[in-house]
Amino acid sequence: MFFCFEGLDGSGKSTQLTMLAEGLRAQGRDLLTIREPGGTRLGEAVRGILLDKEQHQMQPEAELLLFTAARNQLVKEVIEPALRAGKIVLSDRFYWSTFAYQGYARGIDLEIIKMLTQFACHGLQPRQTFLLDVPLHMMKQRHGAMAKEHDRMESSGDLFYEKVRNAYLSLAKLYPSQITQLDGSLGATVLAKSILNQVMEQLNSGEGARDSRLASY
Amino acid sequence: MFFCFEGLDGSGKSTQLTMLAEGLRAQGRDLLTIREPGGTRLGEAVRGILLDKEQHQMQPEAELLLFTAARNQLVKEVIEPALRAGKIVLSDRFYWSTFAYQGYARGIDLEIIKMLTQFACHGLQPRQTFLLDVPLHMMKQRHGAMAKEHDRMESSGDLFYEKVRNAYLSLAKLYPSQITQLDGSLGATVLAKSILNQVMEQLNSGEGARDSRLASY
Repeated sequence: MFFCFEGLDGSGKSTQLTMLAEGLRAQGRDLLTIREPGGTRLGEAVRGILLDKEQHQMQPEAELLLFTAARNQLVKEVIEPALRAGKIVLSDRFYWSTFAYQGYARGIDLEIIKMLTQFACHGLQPRQTFLLDVPLHMMKQRHGAMAKEHDRMESSGDLFYEKVRNAYLSLAKLYPSQITQLDGSLGATVLAKSILNQVMEQLNSGEGARDSRLASY
Repeated sequence: MFFCFEGLDGSGKSTQLTMLAEGLRAQGRDLLTIREPGGTRLGEAVRGILLDKEQHQMQPEAELLLFTAARNQLVKEVIEPALRAGKIVLSDRFYWSTFAYQGYARGIDLEIIKMLTQFACHGLQPRQTFLLDVPLHMMKQRHGAMAKEHDRMESSGDLFYEKVRNAYLSLAKLYPSQITQLDGSLGATVLAKSILNQVMEQLNSGEGARDSRLASY
């Protein structure tokens, strides 16, 4: 089964992914954690381009195509083989990031993004995506606390992040059976417990309960 | 006006591009020469990934998306501004390479490639494309003479190159008003003269003679 975490940087998604992985490993579950873009030799090379601050002339369409290339490689080389081997896969970001950032926030036609996602992922769909929603001031506070230099994607203005946040909230309303919205301002332990419970429920309900192919989204 | 050269590596396209550029510069024409993938900071970084022999697990779809990303950046950042400034643009490869290599030879659906090309190029279409056709043994002979190590794209087998060559020939038959097939085994000077004549004819027939937007191909 395949689970994803989405949200702004600083939303706590990476922390929650790590805590979920620990919770599942403590139960002896065989799992794989990945991050997007990345996770393959090609994906890490593409990630380097996407985050490079010198690439300030990057076109929105080129950005979309690079993210999609990295995702295709990750699906074929890593995710599909792991799922076939019966592993649980946890990903820090997946295609909803593209809908939020490149679609809603950068303004690329969502139909194009759907088509590209279908092409790149061969219909693979996460069983459940956890959206960690935080207000912008909290994102900035947490992000500032990390005290590292911002990369190209992180160098956008507040308006951009507000658009991304609203995009995620819209997507969660549109696709409630796929995206579970969580209040990212809650304590990490409280959130982790809730997420682990939901994942356990999915795992116990069995593999066959929902078609993992993506019909529409 | 925008002219392109296509063909297998070793077909002489780069030589012909250089000779055409010299011929046009001798007439005082303002021009820009580019190569694909590349020509921009993003494109050169993507080129590095595409040619890297360590990237042997690269998926055909990811390869297509990377080429398309580099092309989008090149169109928006370099080609369109140059054309708007009244320059002649000469390119070593453009989208016909994608139809031949990723479409016909790697087997990706041509409709997907059309759609991606439209998305990446915003309908930009070369005024004329010169296809330098050479038999496989000549390509290998010339390529061997260059005596450099082969990159990832060049490490494919004979069957692959035969497919690419046949793809180009099919495309030239399907789109004769866009692709001019030339016998690449002819002497470089003879070819250069023919190409320069054809380009001069296009330049003299004026910018408005054919819509430079791509309606269908």
